[in-house]
Amino acid sequence: MFDKFNDECGVFGVYNHPEAANITYLGLYSLQHRGQESAGIVSSNEGKLRSHKGMGLVADIFHKKDLARLPGKSAIGHVRYSTAGESHIKNAQPFVVEYSLGEIAIAHNGNIVNAQILRDELEAYGSIFQSSMDTEVIVHLMATSNDSKLIRRLTSALMRVKGAYSLVLLSNKKLIAVRDPNGFRPLVLGRIKDAGRDGKDSWVVASETCAFEIIDAEYVRDVEPGEVIIIDEYGLKSIKPFAEAKYTPCVFEFIYFARPDSRIFNANVYTVRKRLGAELYRDHPVEADVVLPVPDSGTPAAMGYAEASGIPFEMGMVRNHYVGRTFIEPQAEIRHFGVKIKLNPIRDIVAGKRVVVVDDSIVRGTTSQKIIKMLRNAGASEIHMRISSPPTISPCYYGIDTPNKEELIAANHDLADINDYITSDTLGYLSIEGVYRAVAESGASFCDACFTGNYVLARPKPPQLALFG
Amino acid sequence: MFDKFNDECGVFGVYNHPEAANITYLGLYSLQHRGQESAGIVSSNEGKLRSHKGMGLVADIFHKKDLARLPGKSAIGHVRYSTAGESHIKNAQPFVVEYSLGEIAIAHNGNIVNAQILRDELEAYGSIFQSSMDTEVIVHLMATSNDSKLIRRLTSALMRVKGAYSLVLLSNKKLIAVRDPNGFRPLVLGRIKDAGRDGKDSWVVASETCAFEIIDAEYVRDVEPGEVIIIDEYGLKSIKPFAEAKYTPCVFEFIYFARPDSRIFNANVYTVRKRLGAELYRDHPVEADVVLPVPDSGTPAAMGYAEASGIPFEMGMVRNHYVGRTFIEPQAEIRHFGVKIKLNPIRDIVAGKRVVVVDDSIVRGTTSQKIIKMLRNAGASEIHMRISSPPTISPCYYGIDTPNKEELIAANHDLADINDYITSDTLGYLSIEGVYRAVAESGASFCDACFTGNYVLARPKPPQLALFG
Amino acid sequence: MFDKFNDECGVFGVYNHPEAANITYLGLYSLQHRGQESAGIVSSNEGKLRSHKGMGLVADIFHKKDLARLPGKSAIGHVRYSTAGESHIKNAQPFVVEYSLGEIAIAHNGNIVNAQILRDELEAYGSIFQSSMDTEVIVHLMATSNDSKLIRRLTSALMRVKGAYSLVLLSNKKLIAVRDPNGFRPLVLGRIKDAGRDGKDSWVVASETCAFEIIDAEYVRDVEPGEVIIIDEYGLKSIKPFAEAKYTPCVFEFIYFARPDSRIFNANVYTVRKRLGAELYRDHPVEADVVLPVPDSGTPAAMGYAEASGIPFEMGMVRNHYVGRTFIEPQAEIRHFGVKIKLNPIRDIVAGKRVVVVDDSIVRGTTSQKIIKMLRNAGASEIHMRISSPPTISPCYYGIDTPNKEELIAANHDLADINDYITSDTLGYLSIEGVYRAVAESGASFCDACFTGNYVLARPKPPQLALFG
Amino acid sequence: MFDKFNDECGVFGVYNHPEAANITYLGLYSLQHRGQESAGIVSSNEGKLRSHKGMGLVADIFHKKDLARLPGKSAIGHVRYSTAGESHIKNAQPFVVEYSLGEIAIAHNGNIVNAQILRDELEAYGSIFQSSMDTEVIVHLMATSNDSKLIRRLTSALMRVKGAYSLVLLSNKKLIAVRDPNGFRPLVLGRIKDAGRDGKDSWVVASETCAFEIIDAEYVRDVEPGEVIIIDEYGLKSIKPFAEAKYTPCVFEFIYFARPDSRIFNANVYTVRKRLGAELYRDHPVEADVVLPVPDSGTPAAMGYAEASGIPFEMGMVRNHYVGRTFIEPQAEIRHFGVKIKLNPIRDIVAGKRVVVVDDSIVRGTTSQKIIKMLRNAGASEIHMRISSPPTISPCYYGIDTPNKEELIAANHDLADINDYITSDTLGYLSIEGVYRAVAESGASFCDACFTGNYVLARPKPPQLALFG
Repeated sequence: MFDKFNDECGVFGVYNHPEAANITYLGLYSLQHRGQESAGIVSSNEGKLRSHKGMGLVADIFHKKDLARLPGKSAIGHVRYSTAGESHIKNAQPFVVEYSLGEIAIAHNGNIVNAQILRDELEAYGSIFQSSMDTEVIVHLMATSNDSKLIRRLTSALMRVKGAYSLVLLSNKKLIAVRDPNGFRPLVLGRIKDAGRDGKDSWVVASETCAFEIIDAEYVRDVEPGEVIIIDEYGLKSIKPFAEAKYTPCVFEFIYFARPDSRIFNANVYTVRKRLGAELYRDHPVEADVVLPVPDSGTPAAMGYAEASGIPFEMGMVRNHYVGRTFIEPQAEIRHFGVKIKLNPIRDIVAGKRVVVVDDSIVRGTTSQKIIKMLRNAGASEIHMRISSPPTISPCYYGIDTPNKEELIAANHDLADINDYITSDTLGYLSIEGVYRAVAESGASFCDACFTGNYVLARPKPPQLALFG
Repeated sequence: MFDKFNDECGVFGVYNHPEAANITYLGLYSLQHRGQESAGIVSSNEGKLRSHKGMGLVADIFHKKDLARLPGKSAIGHVRYSTAGESHIKNAQPFVVEYSLGEIAIAHNGNIVNAQILRDELEAYGSIFQSSMDTEVIVHLMATSNDSKLIRRLTSALMRVKGAYSLVLLSNKKLIAVRDPNGFRPLVLGRIKDAGRDGKDSWVVASETCAFEIIDAEYVRDVEPGEVIIIDEYGLKSIKPFAEAKYTPCVFEFIYFARPDSRIFNANVYTVRKRLGAELYRDHPVEADVVLPVPDSGTPAAMGYAEASGIPFEMGMVRNHYVGRTFIEPQAEIRHFGVKIKLNPIRDIVAGKRVVVVDDSIVRGTTSQKIIKMLRNAGASEIHMRISSPPTISPCYYGIDTPNKEELIAANHDLADINDYITSDTLGYLSIEGVYRAVAESGASFCDACFTGNYVLARPKPPQLALFG
Repeated sequence: MFDKFNDECGVFGVYNHPEAANITYLGLYSLQHRGQESAGIVSSNEGKLRSHKGMGLVADIFHKKDLARLPGKSAIGHVRYSTAGESHIKNAQPFVVEYSLGEIAIAHNGNIVNAQILRDELEAYGSIFQSSMDTEVIVHLMATSNDSKLIRRLTSALMRVKGAYSLVLLSNKKLIAVRDPNGFRPLVLGRIKDAGRDGKDSWVVASETCAFEIIDAEYVRDVEPGEVIIIDEYGLKSIKPFAEAKYTPCVFEFIYFARPDSRIFNANVYTVRKRLGAELYRDHPVEADVVLPVPDSGTPAAMGYAEASGIPFEMGMVRNHYVGRTFIEPQAEIRHFGVKIKLNPIRDIVAGKRVVVVDDSIVRGTTSQKIIKMLRNAGASEIHMRISSPPTISPCYYGIDTPNKEELIAANHDLADINDYITSDTLGYLSIEGVYRAVAESGASFCDACFTGNYVLARPKPPQLALFG
Repeated sequence: MFDKFNDECGVFGVYNHPEAANITYLGLYSLQHRGQESAGIVSSNEGKLRSHKGMGLVADIFHKKDLARLPGKSAIGHVRYSTAGESHIKNAQPFVVEYSLGEIAIAHNGNIVNAQILRDELEAYGSIFQSSMDTEVIVHLMATSNDSKLIRRLTSALMRVKGAYSLVLLSNKKLIAVRDPNGFRPLVLGRIKDAGRDGKDSWVVASETCAFEIIDAEYVRDVEPGEVIIIDEYGLKSIKPFAEAKYTPCVFEFIYFARPDSRIFNANVYTVRKRLGAELYRDHPVEADVVLPVPDSGTPAAMGYAEASGIPFEMGMVRNHYVGRTFIEPQAEIRHFGVKIKLNPIRDIVAGKRVVVVDDSIVRGTTSQKIIKMLRNAGASEIHMRISSPPTISPCYYGIDTPNKEELIAANHDLADINDYITSDTLGYLSIEGVYRAVAESGASFCDACFTGNYVLARPKPPQLALFG
């Protein structure tokens, strides 16, 4: 409904907890913002994996009886976003298969850039594919290896894979967490002390720390780029089998995707977002009467902008959270209707005022245009749009669902054009330098390809000749 | 899930709109915060009323085909809250009946204090009741009158009724809006100019002005206390058939129920809430590092408190809006679990800080206690609870679902006890004088029975003797 | 899907059974053939009635938890058929109301011919109607009486009512069964000995005896025409408060509606149907190779025809019972598709044969036409249609859903025309005398208005003048 | 609910029909008796396969919009039965995968006896399995071949497979039908002349001819044992690539599984069943008053028994077809409840009579026992049980879901014991010679392993040593 990039997944895993499926349910519920299309949980019990998956929200997919059918002390889970066309239960994760070493389940956040090449090659050697997910490639690579050890199969499979992956795997005996060498997507490790009241701790992994809070787990550390963590009855073991690479986590996680209460990449998201707002003021100051966020994602940056500028901050647009599953668009000619389903300005705050509106990003510009019209109808005398990130000019290949370049307004138009299109009085984007000042605390170098077009990993083209002519 | 009073209803009506049912759908969607248990729409077409009702959220109850089955240019709608025990489709409104003058539909926000007495009497004279709603009484009083005019039947019925009622009625020819002489519940009148592109305006009535924004209707004025507005092919007519009474709208609408972007009782809700926060600081200042709201309802008051005090305002707790229909409580021993489903503190904001937490009210105290524990676990060094309303000591008889007096913590405990129970360092409630300073702009006298026990209208006791001995 | 008359209801009641709701569920399940649109159960427990109703089949409406919410030792239930237009949950029965004597639930099989007049009058005196069911009239008549005793209210209400009614009522203390003075619809009384293992019997009433078999109840006797049976803690009491009338049960119950294993009106349905078939042969003999029923309802008559004629009986058409809820009509041009969803001929039985096809009735003729074409395609050399009832020429006013006279093929066409239309080689309907020979065992005089137009009770016309001018 | 063997599947395919998915829907609907657990359809359109599958009945799984999403002129479909434990959407067929030659969909009726060995081997070489279906093995064998032609891959895959398979496959270009060399399961070929009104015919394949009748297709011939039929734009091609084997179709298809109106194995099922009944009388004559079938499957044999014996045939038990999805077992102590949900005797037919009850088979004996008790309660003076097949003593490995040998009453008890257990006065099973006389028309040799233990194909034991030591 909003004009945003969409995240593609959240992953979760727990080892040695008497209520592993329940804990995973809670973890996924906290990660729901990372994907609302489908969700699934797989548990391991007495040498057998069991799974339950469905389309929709975690709290609607899992009922008591479903969780009761997922016994065992280890489990992994997944929430998924995808575009409508590919939305299908067969693409829901975790992906569970049987292969020569037994059963394995895998949950993946990220995107594999050489998936099609690997898929063509695997098919040429006899593999069959049942989904359109690139994740399936990883499992086939593991299956076609002839190593007798699961971990060696996994690492040699991943050595062939290029791209972004924060993975959680579950076998009958082990919980495994892997983060790609560049560490594109977040992945954190936590612990629940004495989870079963038997003196033994429980280990948890999750996309974000917000999944730890709801289950009273303590954050231990990030899973490191290129790290494979293996948890089994002998405890936790860490290996780093891959060639070292530059640590380039996704900066957009700070700007929009992650939950404000999470710590990712060594910094708190909310605090970073406020700093982005403060930097935005430094880049693009303006005289105005009031600063409004586009809620909920623009709120921290707007607060940062207001604090830096001294202009009063107001929650001047109210968001309706009761959207339900199937909102019906009315036929009536109602101006700029789309955004009204979710947002409504407060006339008393806006009327006659010079307004700064802070949002985190502009993708196509359509929502911004509607918001500005709505605020003008509510009586705003001036509207200054401020965006707490640089113009988005390039699609993401590392796990974010972005539109084609043609649809990205900033890829094809300059600032003046965009300002005209969205009808703001002035428009200011945060500079890339401003972003880096705001995230400096993290210490990473970051992937910023969506702003710069500088891709850390090239996307290989499939070969022109048939593979086996 | 939160420890709040619950509103019982929102009403909506539209006359002379080519898409009356669609418009009502949007109106109800905007009033969803006033009731999430059931909803219904009735339209009038060619002398016949048609209705669709269901349990749940507006956006889940109505699908395209349902709205298509509600033709006609007038419609009314209703959203309802009720306690679980009485939750039943047969109590969903609008209530539609056939009686001697034809069909009539009624939607009611409020509560009738002499309903049981009237019901006993009506049954004694032969009426049958199919629901447990007091609204049914009004229709029976209309039906048992022998006046030949609908409006006279309605007004003579209402003369026998004591209590709170903002009503919207629909007959084959008329849309009628009524507000009780005390004007307990809000009810506003609006207009959509040239709605059908035929030069004719459309009239709308709604519980709050936020329902006008989504349909591009302009706010005309409040329906006045004791006013009956009749809209039909001859235009809009207003009568005031009842004895005049003191105008005592519900002050709690400002404190908690109404949506911040609404104007009710001649004032904007958000602005009043910020003032309540400022008054709260005047009543209960404290030295602290940060002011946090309990989101979403406590946010404006916290902003007002922060502005008045100069203490920085932070969105230090994140609310999860993906709750779904059937969240499962885990068995795991997770501390203060209940509130974690919806709220999580941001450690980086809270740790080591002296925190002021602003909420709009405390009902039982259970949620406050959990929030405070959660904040202490996140490292808060001091926690000062500030409530932007006086202690709630008495139940409401005018349309709000309040617990029994025994469950209202402030009805049975003094401030020190409550502070002990919720484990805050200090606790401060806004004084009733502070409330009145904050709502002065409205100019009304207000019902404050929940804070003072001063009931505007007594609740009559059913007679001891049988009615017809 | 088939071109048949549709029954409108089945009723059931049980008194003093530890599992009253479960027993009612089973009873309704056995009466499902009498109505598949909606069903409901009301139980009485500790002075309070509880109900559950839904649209669809009994086995789909009631789940364990629903039955568990219907505690108590007495219950009544209802299954309903109705035409699509009026299909609505608010018309589902039992109908439950509160009135001056407390709560009452009513379940009705039949039709009241003076309902509209009574309804107009009741509305004129202040009653409101919430459904389009004539049953609601009975309850209003009871409510507007000023007698202090339930039974006297009921009998005086029924004295004003003309029409067909087999009723089961439930109050907090009593189970009441009533059959109209003409006894149009069946109603039987049964007993479960020592149902609760406490030495006390349980009483049951039902539309047909087939509902007794599934619950191991013994058939005691028919509820007599004009009889009111009251069952309460003092036992079973019978009164006959109405003026005596001719006993004219519906002969069509024998021909089509009732289940073959039921005993109604003192005869077994299957046996009567076989005799109808034998009489049909006497009326319309033919030389042929094989007798086929239109299954399932035509089977016994076809067997009777075959036995009487000596022509071999074959189940030469197979019926598909897996129809599901929402069969989709294909677009493809498939000849005489409609009936193929349910019926398919066996070529090996039909090819080259002179076939007698026995059905119980013809309403519009469309199904017969399709069946005959289907049989010709399967190679039948001659097709002789035989109908085990006379031509249906008049609609029913006593509880059967019949089409308008214009749609009844036999009301507007003679035998030759119908034979032409359905394309049979010969066509023979059973004579009314043949019907009476077949049902002679019952001893009743029977209503045969659908065949003769002789209505036992006239359908009063609403007065031309307003009731109270 | 009944004590029967369960069939495992029905398959259907259509090539070159403008409404391929609709036609498949109708075909599956006619084959519903072969499997009620899940169903699916895959269509081929512009080089892309699309599928829709679900749990439950065909008419409930497919709605208009689902069929509209299956465009194209070719389609295949499948209905499946399976035991509760393995019931899962991931086992629903057709099975659709992508492999090196593109996409392929497969629908399978039968059972592969060396599936586990092949699976172990395939996994050892890198295949992963996502279901527990043996059908998946066939696709993996095709994928791991390195032949460039689909048909050669299929035939070489099937050369490695032992067991029963009637297969329908769909690629982007071809519809393929295969029947195993022994021809265990039926598979028939049909044609719809000028299906698209463009002069071109449409080809159809189905498990039984009853699927042809509903779509007005003509039966052409059986797919022969060991035959592979390939249908594509160049027309229909037939090859027989496998070593010839004895033609041993499943005799139980005639006894119970197939629909009476179908022709399978060159004979009509209804006619064969009547002959089985006549042979049964020859084997086990008895003096009695009436012959009753256990409906619906026992009806033709009972008619054959009645005709041969001259004892009158009566439909003396009524079957309730309104079972719905979730019938609730009552707690009440109701004698022999289970079978009453579906069957009820007609007292007037049974009371005082010497009854012959004809059923097609006895599996565990529990249903027979309940039926006999029910008939005795209805007054039968003698009950002679006659079974139109020999005692079932061995499980089926060729596609029928049979219980373990321990549960087969006849595997462990002699005739006298069974007669005692089910409490019949006398009990007679048809001899194997009687069966062969009845099916002689077919000309095949038949698999009768369930009666004799003579398995046509041995079930290989997995090797004791690991495959690649």
